[in-house]
Amino acid sequence: MGPRGCASRRLAARGVTRRALARGARRGGVVVTHDEEKLADVLCVDGRIAAVGANLDVPSDARVIDADGLLIMPGGIDPHTHMELPFMGTVASEDFFTGTSAAAAGGTTTIIDFVIPAPQQNLLEAYHTWRGWAEKSACDYSFHVAVTWWDDTVHADMGTLTREHGVNSFKHFMAYKNAIMCDDETLVNSFARCNELGAIPTVHAENGELVFRLQKEMYERGYVGPEGHPLSRPPEVEGEAANSAIRIAEVLGVPLYLVHTSCEDALEAVRRARSEGQRVFAEVLAQHLVIDDSVYRNPDWSFAAHHVMSPPFRSKRHQGLLWKGLQSGLIHTTATDHCCFCTPQKAMGKDDFRKIPNGTGGVEDRMSVLWSEGVETGMLTPSEFVAVTSTNAAKIFNIFPRKGSVSVGADADLVLWDPKGTRTISAKTHHQKIDFNVYEGMEVTGIPAYTLSQGDVVWENGELKTQRGKGRYIDRPCYPTYWKNQQRRNEVAVPEKVVRAAYTGPVA
Amino acid sequence: MGPRGCASRRLAARGVTRRALARGARRGGVVVTHDEEKLADVLCVDGRIAAVGANLDVPSDARVIDADGLLIMPGGIDPHTHMELPFMGTVASEDFFTGTSAAAAGGTTTIIDFVIPAPQQNLLEAYHTWRGWAEKSACDYSFHVAVTWWDDTVHADMGTLTREHGVNSFKHFMAYKNAIMCDDETLVNSFARCNELGAIPTVHAENGELVFRLQKEMYERGYVGPEGHPLSRPPEVEGEAANSAIRIAEVLGVPLYLVHTSCEDALEAVRRARSEGQRVFAEVLAQHLVIDDSVYRNPDWSFAAHHVMSPPFRSKRHQGLLWKGLQSGLIHTTATDHCCFCTPQKAMGKDDFRKIPNGTGGVEDRMSVLWSEGVETGMLTPSEFVAVTSTNAAKIFNIFPRKGSVSVGADADLVLWDPKGTRTISAKTHHQKIDFNVYEGMEVTGIPAYTLSQGDVVWENGELKTQRGKGRYIDRPCYPTYWKNQQRRNEVAVPEKVVRAAYTGPVA
Amino acid sequence: MGPRGCASRRLAARGVTRRALARGARRGGVVVTHDEEKLADVLCVDGRIAAVGANLDVPSDARVIDADGLLIMPGGIDPHTHMELPFMGTVASEDFFTGTSAAAAGGTTTIIDFVIPAPQQNLLEAYHTWRGWAEKSACDYSFHVAVTWWDDTVHADMGTLTREHGVNSFKHFMAYKNAIMCDDETLVNSFARCNELGAIPTVHAENGELVFRLQKEMYERGYVGPEGHPLSRPPEVEGEAANSAIRIAEVLGVPLYLVHTSCEDALEAVRRARSEGQRVFAEVLAQHLVIDDSVYRNPDWSFAAHHVMSPPFRSKRHQGLLWKGLQSGLIHTTATDHCCFCTPQKAMGKDDFRKIPNGTGGVEDRMSVLWSEGVETGMLTPSEFVAVTSTNAAKIFNIFPRKGSVSVGADADLVLWDPKGTRTISAKTHHQKIDFNVYEGMEVTGIPAYTLSQGDVVWENGELKTQRGKGRYIDRPCYPTYWKNQQRRNEVAVPEKVVRAAYTGPVA
Amino acid sequence: MGPRGCASRRLAARGVTRRALARGARRGGVVVTHDEEKLADVLCVDGRIAAVGANLDVPSDARVIDADGLLIMPGGIDPHTHMELPFMGTVASEDFFTGTSAAAAGGTTTIIDFVIPAPQQNLLEAYHTWRGWAEKSACDYSFHVAVTWWDDTVHADMGTLTREHGVNSFKHFMAYKNAIMCDDETLVNSFARCNELGAIPTVHAENGELVFRLQKEMYERGYVGPEGHPLSRPPEVEGEAANSAIRIAEVLGVPLYLVHTSCEDALEAVRRARSEGQRVFAEVLAQHLVIDDSVYRNPDWSFAAHHVMSPPFRSKRHQGLLWKGLQSGLIHTTATDHCCFCTPQKAMGKDDFRKIPNGTGGVEDRMSVLWSEGVETGMLTPSEFVAVTSTNAAKIFNIFPRKGSVSVGADADLVLWDPKGTRTISAKTHHQKIDFNVYEGMEVTGIPAYTLSQGDVVWENGELKTQRGKGRYIDRPCYPTYWKNQQRRNEVAVPEKVVRAAYTGPVA
Repeated sequence: MGPRGCASRRLAARGVTRRALARGARRGGVVVTHDEEKLADVLCVDGRIAAVGANLDVPSDARVIDADGLLIMPGGIDPHTHMELPFMGTVASEDFFTGTSAAAAGGTTTIIDFVIPAPQQNLLEAYHTWRGWAEKSACDYSFHVAVTWWDDTVHADMGTLTREHGVNSFKHFMAYKNAIMCDDETLVNSFARCNELGAIPTVHAENGELVFRLQKEMYERGYVGPEGHPLSRPPEVEGEAANSAIRIAEVLGVPLYLVHTSCEDALEAVRRARSEGQRVFAEVLAQHLVIDDSVYRNPDWSFAAHHVMSPPFRSKRHQGLLWKGLQSGLIHTTATDHCCFCTPQKAMGKDDFRKIPNGTGGVEDRMSVLWSEGVETGMLTPSEFVAVTSTNAAKIFNIFPRKGSVSVGADADLVLWDPKGTRTISAKTHHQKIDFNVYEGMEVTGIPAYTLSQGDVVWENGELKTQRGKGRYIDRPCYPTYWKNQQRRNEVAVPEKVVRAAYTGPVA
Repeated sequence: MGPRGCASRRLAARGVTRRALARGARRGGVVVTHDEEKLADVLCVDGRIAAVGANLDVPSDARVIDADGLLIMPGGIDPHTHMELPFMGTVASEDFFTGTSAAAAGGTTTIIDFVIPAPQQNLLEAYHTWRGWAEKSACDYSFHVAVTWWDDTVHADMGTLTREHGVNSFKHFMAYKNAIMCDDETLVNSFARCNELGAIPTVHAENGELVFRLQKEMYERGYVGPEGHPLSRPPEVEGEAANSAIRIAEVLGVPLYLVHTSCEDALEAVRRARSEGQRVFAEVLAQHLVIDDSVYRNPDWSFAAHHVMSPPFRSKRHQGLLWKGLQSGLIHTTATDHCCFCTPQKAMGKDDFRKIPNGTGGVEDRMSVLWSEGVETGMLTPSEFVAVTSTNAAKIFNIFPRKGSVSVGADADLVLWDPKGTRTISAKTHHQKIDFNVYEGMEVTGIPAYTLSQGDVVWENGELKTQRGKGRYIDRPCYPTYWKNQQRRNEVAVPEKVVRAAYTGPVA
Repeated sequence: MGPRGCASRRLAARGVTRRALARGARRGGVVVTHDEEKLADVLCVDGRIAAVGANLDVPSDARVIDADGLLIMPGGIDPHTHMELPFMGTVASEDFFTGTSAAAAGGTTTIIDFVIPAPQQNLLEAYHTWRGWAEKSACDYSFHVAVTWWDDTVHADMGTLTREHGVNSFKHFMAYKNAIMCDDETLVNSFARCNELGAIPTVHAENGELVFRLQKEMYERGYVGPEGHPLSRPPEVEGEAANSAIRIAEVLGVPLYLVHTSCEDALEAVRRARSEGQRVFAEVLAQHLVIDDSVYRNPDWSFAAHHVMSPPFRSKRHQGLLWKGLQSGLIHTTATDHCCFCTPQKAMGKDDFRKIPNGTGGVEDRMSVLWSEGVETGMLTPSEFVAVTSTNAAKIFNIFPRKGSVSVGADADLVLWDPKGTRTISAKTHHQKIDFNVYEGMEVTGIPAYTLSQGDVVWENGELKTQRGKGRYIDRPCYPTYWKNQQRRNEVAVPEKVVRAAYTGPVA
Repeated sequence: MGPRGCASRRLAARGVTRRALARGARRGGVVVTHDEEKLADVLCVDGRIAAVGANLDVPSDARVIDADGLLIMPGGIDPHTHMELPFMGTVASEDFFTGTSAAAAGGTTTIIDFVIPAPQQNLLEAYHTWRGWAEKSACDYSFHVAVTWWDDTVHADMGTLTREHGVNSFKHFMAYKNAIMCDDETLVNSFARCNELGAIPTVHAENGELVFRLQKEMYERGYVGPEGHPLSRPPEVEGEAANSAIRIAEVLGVPLYLVHTSCEDALEAVRRARSEGQRVFAEVLAQHLVIDDSVYRNPDWSFAAHHVMSPPFRSKRHQGLLWKGLQSGLIHTTATDHCCFCTPQKAMGKDDFRKIPNGTGGVEDRMSVLWSEGVETGMLTPSEFVAVTSTNAAKIFNIFPRKGSVSVGADADLVLWDPKGTRTISAKTHHQKIDFNVYEGMEVTGIPAYTLSQGDVVWENGELKTQRGKGRYIDRPCYPTYWKNQQRRNEVAVPEKVVRAAYTGPVA
């Protein structure tokens, strides 16, 4: 991997344009944003977009890419990945370089990964550890930071992270009892702290207490294989936690972002909240949109185990509702929770599903899966596709329009999409560092022809040209617009005082 | 209080009939059950109903009560009272004798009170303590037992209580942190234990963690009076807990009974669950149906403090939805949470609302309030009134048709209702042992002319004739019909096993 | 068919008891009503229930039926049948004698059929025609009367029917354009007339205008076979009409009964209305609960055509929701819309699905299907089974407790149910007069051992003993309890007048 | 009215910029779009936006407006007005010049009015009549065309209007029986025609049959004043029609736009549909957001009559839900249904509310009311304000980004908003041609400092400078993006054929 065959970095850095097209004689590419589709050239200079318009003057030293038949879209943002995560006694196989390269191969140019301190671990220390690991990234990245425990230092460090380290979102695991699970007290404290900071709390919503009990019960009743995994994490368990987190956020006056909503039970909670005007955002994983829970009953243990992730895959009925959630604006972002474990790692739980490391890959395939199953089927417009794969995440996490847009001044992170191109997904050909692909054999329509990161071509017609360490850490400031609005709401909601004479009667 | 002016106990014990009425010349009373309205005499012998029918032969020694213009209905059941409860550093002023007498004055002939062990207190010990206190009761009574903590003895004692002591329901407080609050782990353990026993878990649904934080916050922001009480217990806090309890019950395969649902937020959770076929029952307090949260902003501290109970009174909008819940069958029972504290007791919190003992009276007024505001307004039919004041509670807690019916063999607990009689509610005239009445000044239509307990007239045209110690403890067996059905569901839901070859590959 | 092998009518007429059982040594039968399960004998005298109780004295001339292992339940009520209906150019093959006999074979002892005047036909004339046809009935019956057009005579005849002919319900077809479809104007007029009379409007809810267009469209696009039927009547079409009818009933202040609700779309409308306290009742057909829409794509034209009824069968997802509707009390009654057409009749539409007479059989199988799929699976309790197969219909149509109960004075219409008995449904063995059975080959658990109508044994262990003409017309008075309650609501809702000075300014 | 005091048209036409601001020293204005807030100058040349960016070079002949402290936003679009409409025996008092001038005074630069042919009137003829009337407009405008009847010429004319006259939306009145009401058959035909054309059906959703009956009933019961108006048009009547239209659109595969949704009943229908992925858009009038139904009970007849419009104003509860609809994205646009009738016109119905011409003014006040009640209160962000007052309408009606954006190439229709400016609304000072203002006395925060239409300053600090006839008709092409997506869905939804052997058996 890395830049190959790119004669001149400078050229590549300077320009992406679509060859001039006479209006009415539409031969070619179209800029597609979350807002509109229009014929235009895009000029990139020094890693940024310098101009967008019809028939732009192309600098003589610019490399010109013919976008005929292609769609020029903002590079994808995957707001939920776990590169090289230490988890459940092992470490995720995909590292920040291979992972961001695979992302680029799929049209994704920014990831937001997670710093996950162990309970009692100092947040800043963990943050710096992850920053170190991520320096090898090929594309831009940022970090949510998990709050897994609580004391005064955590309170203080959250402030430092937002003020000095560009962190505007904190993650809370409501599952994984006896590990990183956040109890109600920590949840309430951390959400309240987010309120002070203008930061966005995010949650992994599964009731860890119930999961713990069900895991024990299922194991004891003899469901020791991967089928025990979904049995101990039914949709109700997610619905419970989603609603709890939403209610806590409502009461404490903070926005909320739910990662990987996978089922009706959680979506209903989101719908209720949003119907009442609450600022709740929901994410769905591309995997949950197309893979159903029959995988856990596959007679091949490895196959089944490779699908062990939380929340687990659901029935087709839930899938249908997730798509409707995307269509109706109930779900705002698509992600992957990319967290790769190879077969021998999965095999740590060969006799006990509770020991199978949770996680699946997918950072490379997200956009093609979404286009193929979402746009080709008439469920989403191309602009809606851009919104849910890129722009919405940028807005929620306050990096729009630098990311998620095709506008002057924005980072030149672009994907030139071939809407009719096809590909058969396979572990044999993918660029992800994992020996399995959950979409194995799926033929998708809609593939990236070129991916540009910071104006560099990092993927070109099947060839990966990423560079180790070229990616940058992206600061994300607190108080995105909707948070300012939330603040105004909180001010308006201050109750009136009641003035009373003191009680002077007898006291028991 | 006690029997006065009742010339012959024997006569009173032997008969209640309505004078024979020629059909078509409807002059008089009507038996109203949850099912139907019909002209009939009711004959009571030895504390039980011996016959129901038109033109019954009346034994010569029977006392005949003319029910002309009256409705003969099952005596009310109040499934939620707290007589002489030690709570928040004081003891509820109403005891079992005065409380059950006041109940009788209002047409209620059975109460279900609560045994509430302190954390770490032995359940059986607490049970026997409460049984002792209750021996003075004038009418029949039973006990829910609270689970406030968890260890193996609690697990065992729950079994003993169901097998040997007629307890079929266990209460869980999700609020009152640092006191009787049940954490998630205890909740899950206790619900699972209920599953083993065929017992019914019940919950006080408020998120105690949020309440605790809001109480602190409100107090610190200067809301130190009773107005701080509702501010720290908004509807969302109840909605969160209601949904959590419902989801836990769903996952663990047990029915659930929610006490004092007071708001849309909780009702929505009930509606969702019931729509999916889950066995969830909801109770509403008469107080919540007619009193709104403006009381907490009353300039008179005592007035405001007297309304401090949890959940607090809500806005008129919630009231309207509670009524609709009763109409639509979403809410099954009406209760009072009768828990009296006199002004000097309330005054313990004169400088800090958190120290005001929580509780209001109402056991005497429930049925008149319900008739007046529910039947007179066209919201409920007379049969629906009987269902929600008596029969449904009897069915849910498995004492139907002994209680809650007018049928041969049932206990002769009856109320002869004057649907057009009126009364102005006041602390000056009520029989409750509390120096305040939350309905003060309210004129109600629909009052008991006679109340019979075990065939004795205990209330007769304004005169109370109850006897200390005449009430009996009512055993309630486990596995009501709906629980047997739940058991069948649980059996049907057992997942299939997956047969697989062992994994033989490498392990990390 | 008819009474065979019944040695003594008198004996049969006089008594049904369960052999005395010592409590605790439960060997046998149980009386199951919508309310409770209890050990009891039931004594029938002269067509009515004379006594219900333990260890009844049995008259010496009574026939005693041993109910050991059986459940004694109220005979089923099918509130929706069409015996010998002239429809779509032919006449339903099942007549009132064969139909009510088949009903008895399945445990159903009362049907409510429909008088359907042609547009412009006098209502009374039609009523008398149907009354004549029905005289051959073996079991009791009653009639809804359809309003298919409007003028002053219709208005007057509705009054006559309620006052003089025991009709308390009127049917409205929102589908079948250019035939019996009721337009909005007629619907509004008729509902308003029901308001004046205390009668219950019922609707067949499908938007006939849309059906008409879709039929044409589907036919023209080449879907000429039975598969065109469901394509032209999608669930949305039913949802639209259900909601319209509900809203009209709401605005005009009348209760409403929806026949054969078949899908989520309609159920959601019912749920909304009931949540707001509106008196809306919903019926489901047993067929819709277990048969799905794959039947229409069966390669055998006859097979597919035999399932053509409206609304058509739906997907399994809708089925699941219908069951949940029964569980949650959203759906109140089960019926069959029994309307038989034999293969040659169906074949009238062999080249055009629009000409296939709409209707399926099932009056004989309803109760077994409900028990087998509803009670055995844990979805319903035995009491809930009784409610939805009998009692609820009796209450809604105001013939409770004469029908739908096991109580003294009620008609001795009983079924002695063998909850573990099994039967394989087949056209070869059924008693219905149709050459097809939509449940062909289905094995059901739960069958009638004996059926009694008016105290006579009409079905005994597989032998049919009905008598032609033994059935009686059942008057149904207006103003059931809930209608009186509705009336009260309507009174309460009268808006206040506004008093104003007259406008005296200029007028354009 | 007209341009006054504008020294040089040329200057005005050439430029609007915000004085250059150093970042960090934020002294001034901000460009606010539906997407973002950013510091930028905006250069307008020849009626279009020529550049947007920081520190633009300002042409020497450009007029520079100092936007310090102001927000530069797209001019408002009011998608629902009725200038000089002939209706109910009179003609709306506001004409296209005065109306578009008043709009400009309030920051609105585009209106979409309605061509409303009388039943049987040729559509093209009506279209040309309205085009003639509109030539006097001061700002840009476009036309929805109403379909009030049906025959083949209507079918044909709809095609002509879309192909040759820039019409992409057709209006359907479900109310106004015996006038312009569209029956179900016309509705179905017209929606189906829209499907062929890629046009957008819009509906006024009230069940005209019910309204007609209720009007009669209320009048006869003595509610003859304006209070009879809301009594005959309760929310249920709107809910019924909204759901019907939505269902019809769903079945026929067309998007749908609901004008002036005013109540929960309609919103619930929208929510359901959108949750299922249906393309339904909803509009709300600013009036409905802040005026409640108490106005109809005002003792002053004129005051009450001036509020007569359909749907009528609703209770505060509905208002709250409308705001939540805006917040949650359920409602997309805000409009006014500006249709002015002066007191003598209203007085035509002084003895019969049914004769009061329906309509209120408001085109001038919409944006200030929205800002004041929506943004100042924390309900909406500034970007959401832009979306609901301008951008969303532009997108839905396919004139984005020409209208509704601040982007290069767009029409220079801008408003320079003073977010802290205040104004007291009054008929004495407004520019609308009506002798009443429904917001009389309301003090709003947030007012236009400057309004630009086609780059001309038409409103400047309280002075109106519009020119008669300067406005242009705006063509709106069919098939906006979401319609193309709908088309794709329709293609995907085509059912499979069933292949069968012919039926060869007997036929009845």
